[in-house]
Amino acid sequence: MSDTQGKVITCKAAVAWEAGKPVSIEDITVDPPQAGEVRIKVLYTALCHTDLYTLSGDDPEGAFPVVLGHEGGGIVESIGEGVTDVKVGDHVVPLYTAECRECKFCKSGKTNLCGSVRATQGQGQMPDGTRRFKCKGKELLHFMGCSTFSQYTVVSKYSVVAITDKAPLDKACLLGCGLTTGYGAATKTANVQEGDNVAIFGLGAVGLAVIQGCKARKAKQIIAIDINDGKKDWALGMGATDFVNPTKLDGKSIVEKLIEMTDGGCEHTFDCTGNVHVMRQALEACHKGWGVSTIIGVAAAGKEISTRPFQLVTGRKWQGSAFGGVKGRSELPGLVDDYLAGKLTVDDYVTHRKAVSGRLLSSNTLGEEFEK
Amino acid sequence: MSDTQGKVITCKAAVAWEAGKPVSIEDITVDPPQAGEVRIKVLYTALCHTDLYTLSGDDPEGAFPVVLGHEGGGIVESIGEGVTDVKVGDHVVPLYTAECRECKFCKSGKTNLCGSVRATQGQGQMPDGTRRFKCKGKELLHFMGCSTFSQYTVVSKYSVVAITDKAPLDKACLLGCGLTTGYGAATKTANVQEGDNVAIFGLGAVGLAVIQGCKARKAKQIIAIDINDGKKDWALGMGATDFVNPTKLDGKSIVEKLIEMTDGGCEHTFDCTGNVHVMRQALEACHKGWGVSTIIGVAAAGKEISTRPFQLVTGRKWQGSAFGGVKGRSELPGLVDDYLAGKLTVDDYVTHRKAVSGRLLSSNTLGEEFEK
Repeated sequence: MSDTQGKVITCKAAVAWEAGKPVSIEDITVDPPQAGEVRIKVLYTALCHTDLYTLSGDDPEGAFPVVLGHEGGGIVESIGEGVTDVKVGDHVVPLYTAECRECKFCKSGKTNLCGSVRATQGQGQMPDGTRRFKCKGKELLHFMGCSTFSQYTVVSKYSVVAITDKAPLDKACLLGCGLTTGYGAATKTANVQEGDNVAIFGLGAVGLAVIQGCKARKAKQIIAIDINDGKKDWALGMGATDFVNPTKLDGKSIVEKLIEMTDGGCEHTFDCTGNVHVMRQALEACHKGWGVSTIIGVAAAGKEISTRPFQLVTGRKWQGSAFGGVKGRSELPGLVDDYLAGKLTVDDYVTHRKAVSGRLLSSNTLGEEFEK
Repeated sequence: MSDTQGKVITCKAAVAWEAGKPVSIEDITVDPPQAGEVRIKVLYTALCHTDLYTLSGDDPEGAFPVVLGHEGGGIVESIGEGVTDVKVGDHVVPLYTAECRECKFCKSGKTNLCGSVRATQGQGQMPDGTRRFKCKGKELLHFMGCSTFSQYTVVSKYSVVAITDKAPLDKACLLGCGLTTGYGAATKTANVQEGDNVAIFGLGAVGLAVIQGCKARKAKQIIAIDINDGKKDWALGMGATDFVNPTKLDGKSIVEKLIEMTDGGCEHTFDCTGNVHVMRQALEACHKGWGVSTIIGVAAAGKEISTRPFQLVTGRKWQGSAFGGVKGRSELPGLVDDYLAGKLTVDDYVTHRKAVSGRLLSSNTLGEEFEK
């Protein structure tokens, strides 16, 4: 039993006081976990573009002040009443996509979306409608049910999963969002099959992880697409067979280029950009009759996708994926096993390390290391 | 062997000389079938909205003069070289969705779209690039590979299927498009499951046939939607459990109404209107996490569908269906068997009968009987 159990903890956190301003490192207090809650000592957190999107103020649902961060790795410090699936000392990853196993969604067997904590999570609250963070006399909001930009955080028991302590937490934290999102989109949501031709638009962490998923499924052509040539080596390293920069096609559209490269279009395409125009290209580069396009990127507020319905009537399908279709509590440990078995590259995604002492850096492949 | 074999036949046909004008009954000549072709004595034809759409001139790909019509029933009069699957005297239904069993599409096992005759069919030609109809010294174009508004027509061997002579051809002709399209969209493309809640937008022949397909699959709530209250009895008669007129909801949107009726949204929705705004409503009335919307209606030229990508990222899927996903030569005979076994209502769709002697009538549930 930890000596902090049942007590308020004072620790460092990166607090986002208001939209459009850098976060600042502050001393905050973290209340003990209530019934059904888990307090985690966060050892590592990665930085996702979604954190920056909310910080920027462009997210209409963003609220402040808040403790951002949702890709974490840590150790359970204490648990509230009724928590049975994790215990003090467990190595854990917080889950922004909860899994209660009791709601209509969890029981459907058709989706990884869970309805249990969604409403309060969206409002920056714990499931009971209250908050656990305070700083300078003010309560701070929670973020995506995780708030990993703090040395300690409190999450719902539905929003955390124990993983083997053999996995280094500075790498496993990346499975809390980006890598699982991409890998799962290819292997679960899209269910890419051996011999499929695929195209991936946008080569951030998510896009690179899609490439890994397609390679694991033995896709034939894995065409990686980005307007930044610097992504080429990354993509080929993860398993892409081709790299295309759509700004360098001499007037040919990327849709025409892909249809030509694949003799009619792709079995699967993936949007990892969040750009609605790219989403349309991804759909229209699918093979007539059976091509499936999966949207992973998060579009800016108010943006809409569009196409001619003929694209769908002639057999293309348009779908989306959240957290790769992965049920966090049931399935994340399996991904960790794949990582440890060498089937899933994770280490290469850590491009920067930083101890907690300053401002967030902008990068979608950044491992942000906190002071222990 | 028929005494007309190998000879040019003169017969009556409804010729569409130009866009926006009524068809006129003319004496035309029909050349003998060439290699791989079948000449059919058309006994019955139904009238589909697509015929009227092309006749109106709104279809940018419509070309004139042409013999319209694609829902026919007839008897093989003669065959060209290399035709083995149908013989003289067979009762047949022409197929606007061909099935060659040899192209990439047919061999994929993933789609009923066939690439074999598509290019020439779209140009109003036979597969060899020539035409078989003449009138007043001019060649007439073929339409959708069928041209059933003629007492005799010539089609590709890939565009015709023999059915049992136990099925009355004045009913079986309806399986050449509308009924198969709707019934197949529900049972094959969408693959509705027992207990699903479904909504059908637009209650023409296609929408009513979707209802039949959903009923056959034992869907739970089958919600039929039309702005015309006169469709209510039709819908309930085909198996709908509810009828909703979206113009009479006191300010509530049809999406809100359906989500309320189904406790969260539908497992499946179907657009049978061709209206892109309705297509969006159909998608957004799907249940989060797993709802699938299937577009069947043909939109007007240039119209586009749109939605927020969040609708897809949260688990809805958008797809389309052509000819109900049915492979005509392989699967249409099975639907005819279902009809004869009383599993599939067809007779009720014949609301008007007319011998060949005048102008086309506008109705989407019209059986158009030709003079024999």
